[in-house]
Amino acid sequence: MFFQFIDILGTIAFAISGALVAMNKRMDPFGVLIIAFVTAVGGGTLRDVMIGIEPVSWMRNMTFVYVIIGSATFAVILKNRINYLRKSLFLFDTIGIALYTVVGVETGLIAGLHPLICIALGTMTACFGGVIRDILCNEIPVIFRKEIYATACILGGLTYFLLLQFLDEKNYLFIIAGLVVIIVRLVAVRFKISLPSLYKKDETSKLD
Amino acid sequence: MFFQFIDILGTIAFAISGALVAMNKRMDPFGVLIIAFVTAVGGGTLRDVMIGIEPVSWMRNMTFVYVIIGSATFAVILKNRINYLRKSLFLFDTIGIALYTVVGVETGLIAGLHPLICIALGTMTACFGGVIRDILCNEIPVIFRKEIYATACILGGLTYFLLLQFLDEKNYLFIIAGLVVIIVRLVAVRFKISLPSLYKKDETSKLD
Amino acid sequence: MFFQFIDILGTIAFAISGALVAMNKRMDPFGVLIIAFVTAVGGGTLRDVMIGIEPVSWMRNMTFVYVIIGSATFAVILKNRINYLRKSLFLFDTIGIALYTVVGVETGLIAGLHPLICIALGTMTACFGGVIRDILCNEIPVIFRKEIYATACILGGLTYFLLLQFLDEKNYLFIIAGLVVIIVRLVAVRFKISLPSLYKKDETSKLD
Repeated sequence: MFFQFIDILGTIAFAISGALVAMNKRMDPFGVLIIAFVTAVGGGTLRDVMIGIEPVSWMRNMTFVYVIIGSATFAVILKNRINYLRKSLFLFDTIGIALYTVVGVETGLIAGLHPLICIALGTMTACFGGVIRDILCNEIPVIFRKEIYATACILGGLTYFLLLQFLDEKNYLFIIAGLVVIIVRLVAVRFKISLPSLYKKDETSKLD
Repeated sequence: MFFQFIDILGTIAFAISGALVAMNKRMDPFGVLIIAFVTAVGGGTLRDVMIGIEPVSWMRNMTFVYVIIGSATFAVILKNRINYLRKSLFLFDTIGIALYTVVGVETGLIAGLHPLICIALGTMTACFGGVIRDILCNEIPVIFRKEIYATACILGGLTYFLLLQFLDEKNYLFIIAGLVVIIVRLVAVRFKISLPSLYKKDETSKLD
Repeated sequence: MFFQFIDILGTIAFAISGALVAMNKRMDPFGVLIIAFVTAVGGGTLRDVMIGIEPVSWMRNMTFVYVIIGSATFAVILKNRINYLRKSLFLFDTIGIALYTVVGVETGLIAGLHPLICIALGTMTACFGGVIRDILCNEIPVIFRKEIYATACILGGLTYFLLLQFLDEKNYLFIIAGLVVIIVRLVAVRFKISLPSLYKKDETSKLD
């Protein structure tokens, strides 16, 4: 119940983030809807297909389709009031990856998969929709910029399994793991933290 | 029977369109064959995988494989007679999306999915092969140019379900829905019709 | 037994090739791990999903996950000793496609598919991981450079089915088919052999 609620909230966040990027590229109404749709269902579709949950989730539950159409319409109508697009995009995208990480991890658990696989599924669910969104809109995929992004999802997933040893109440686990994703990403972007480099400063590329 | 005939016609149209783009990029013979193949089966593969029809259609029926090899060979042999490549490409691509829209919608219906999902499946079946073709050949994907493209497929799918209320004979439905796709696209390109813009003229991008 | 051994060797080769390209792009540690992972499992995932083997192989057998993490770590630690990155990359990539061609063909056979489909599956298994690796790292996908690449896999697959008429011992078949892939690619790159062109020299592109 609470789990599906998280899934729908994530869908709203990603649908809005997709619509924002598409509108910024000045796409026509159908283009905005298609990008909103792909952003919202991309990660979950990849996850479901790889696990073998078919037809994939959004095909069996029309709620997702209506929620995406509603969210995209909402973003289009309010676009002149969403003045700070870059900030809004960051906000909805961050909420989206937090919620979808939890959804992906839990879906893997329900399918009886190994914790490491579940964390990979959570990260994929969270990141893949945004990657497709950015590729289709010809932006540099958010996952390949210098920021902490997939790493936040991996840490959220790890938190989930660490706490699973101590906590029985799943709903708290969902909330805490999601908050870890959001906080890691917020702190990393705010303080420009990145992972330690593998390379010395004066080392030049050897392939080129 | 007639349904499979449409599927094969669509396969021919897309295999030729793929071969044309690949030859224009001066690919070697295997490259032309691979692009023809991917263009022809890409959309249907995505559709089948998401519904859970596996192994995907073209793996279970060798007709498709032989038809694609034949069509690509045909395109290679006749390439010097196909003088107006851009027009030929437009022609085969348009026939392809019309036929595949119908195939995708009907496949969704057979799987017992909701009409809106069927229209989405029709649009994906029609558009995805061409998108992969263009990405692999480093062309701007046809779906993201300013023309009406996916919109034509969506309208064809809507027509199908509107007429389904009144018509019993599926074969007529297939033909009418396919013609709607072709006519919408032809008229839109001929008269340079595009969807109404969401943006005011003097509005500039806020993200950049 | 021997078959799974080949699969794991291929996984090691591709994980290292992925880590090398990612390090050359100076990605952070998680980025290197993710690219190693995607390169190693990409082709097999596409194959499994299209056949309907789900959850896909690497989700059901943690050996693959541990092998990939180990290989990527190994590549990171030894990176300063791997002086000739381009040569190392070529080596591991070539071993990878040889082993994965065999794995893909055999997986198709086990699923009871037609020989032509099995060859297509072998080629996909071999080539797709490298294509994703190159796209994600913003390199020109190896499959679209002028060299013989997919063609070597197709020839290896053909060899497999030709010899299947005469040889009963699968393990020999695996080795011979794999060697054909490696030799074809080595010879083609060494002597700059490419497929005969479909085009006359003075022929210019008609689409542009």
